[in-house]
Amino acid sequence: MSTLAMVRHGQSIWNLENRFTGWTDVPLTDGGAAEARNAADLMIAEDMVFDVVHTSVLRRAIGTANLALDRMDLHWIPVRRSWRINERHYGALQGLEKKETAAIHGAEQVFQWRRSYDVPPPTLDLDDPRHPRFDPRYRSVPAAELPAAECLADVVARAIPYWESGILPDLDAGLRVLVVAHGNSMRALLKYLKGISDEEITRLNIPTGIPLVVELDSQHRYVSDRYLGDQAAAEAAAAAVAAQAG
Amino acid sequence: MSTLAMVRHGQSIWNLENRFTGWTDVPLTDGGAAEARNAADLMIAEDMVFDVVHTSVLRRAIGTANLALDRMDLHWIPVRRSWRINERHYGALQGLEKKETAAIHGAEQVFQWRRSYDVPPPTLDLDDPRHPRFDPRYRSVPAAELPAAECLADVVARAIPYWESGILPDLDAGLRVLVVAHGNSMRALLKYLKGISDEEITRLNIPTGIPLVVELDSQHRYVSDRYLGDQAAAEAAAAAVAAQAG
Repeated sequence: MSTLAMVRHGQSIWNLENRFTGWTDVPLTDGGAAEARNAADLMIAEDMVFDVVHTSVLRRAIGTANLALDRMDLHWIPVRRSWRINERHYGALQGLEKKETAAIHGAEQVFQWRRSYDVPPPTLDLDDPRHPRFDPRYRSVPAAELPAAECLADVVARAIPYWESGILPDLDAGLRVLVVAHGNSMRALLKYLKGISDEEITRLNIPTGIPLVVELDSQHRYVSDRYLGDQAAAEAAAAAVAAQAG
Repeated sequence: MSTLAMVRHGQSIWNLENRFTGWTDVPLTDGGAAEARNAADLMIAEDMVFDVVHTSVLRRAIGTANLALDRMDLHWIPVRRSWRINERHYGALQGLEKKETAAIHGAEQVFQWRRSYDVPPPTLDLDDPRHPRFDPRYRSVPAAELPAAECLADVVARAIPYWESGILPDLDAGLRVLVVAHGNSMRALLKYLKGISDEEITRLNIPTGIPLVVELDSQHRYVSDRYLGDQAAAEAAAAAVAAQAG
């Protein structure tokens, strides 16, 4: 039996502005910070403790982890970060307002970019200043692996190696693991762990700021999962996310 | 040539209350948070960039690092933490108000505890709930190494191994290193790097929230150091620290 919990970060400035965010490194809003503290309180209420935290390299996940761990008196635990559990890269859509984008490209096309498993959004130009090759945090990522737009299938392909090389070794060492990440990187991990189909995974909505506790067996295979706290609240939060996700 | 900068955390709640803090894990005040952001601004003004941050396992250093790195857009860099760069353990004095302590034990005795190189304060009882053996963050530290009171010489003895095993490997790898720590752990590192005498080191006052940039040669030996920003401000801050340190 291993302990693994995952938290999806809460509201960011661009959630509020209804923009496609992806790898854009926007901060949490005050509401998002409150969601992080609420996530901590839900874990405290169940006496959860962690030995290590994994985050993406994006501020909204890092800030969520920092706020939650400080509140849990676990600010001192080892920290590991990886771009492999970043949000899906939204390509040339990053920064665009969602309704405007629908007006330009058509609602059907935008729906497909948002909800299909394997249709990536338009790719960022190699010289676009938003391209991750200009960002020092991705300096050590081989050019061939650095995305300029991703569909969910791409996120699965780059997140699973981190499960294998980053998270599993901690579970093998008997550590209690917290992962603070994003809607699509959590989808990717859960698809892998639970064997969810390509079709089904696009309909899985993960609420923000509500810890998901995943029970694994001694081989770290999936047994079950549950959201902490009030189940109706978790379902309502997932439905709210479904209404505005992307 | 390697890049190494050190920041001493700013005001904590117990600085404000004039209590002996040591390993007590008190948070920064709003003023201490402002010092962290100011430290970041001083580093930004000199275009300083880091590849890795080292902190103690105490909230006031961790919080300072988080706030400063977020402001520098470096929240994503790898994080390493060690109890070996914690503040000096103040033994049974932890939590006591400094003037009260002088009234009980005599000003001369308290001065010696605060300012001598090798006279430790009274030791915490093994069953004292403040003893670090009850704190999960020190779980992996061998009992024989876990202090119940430390003089500065003890801090030097436990901090130098971390220079060797924690910080030097990063410098060897060509990484630009930021250390966010405490008055006495910074003294310990600087004593070692600069070959300062036992006598002299007790008179070295390190200002809070002002980055100290240490220039090292290709073998990572000390060449020179300087505080960022206005030198008169750094000196005034060091003098203020001298007046209330402990």
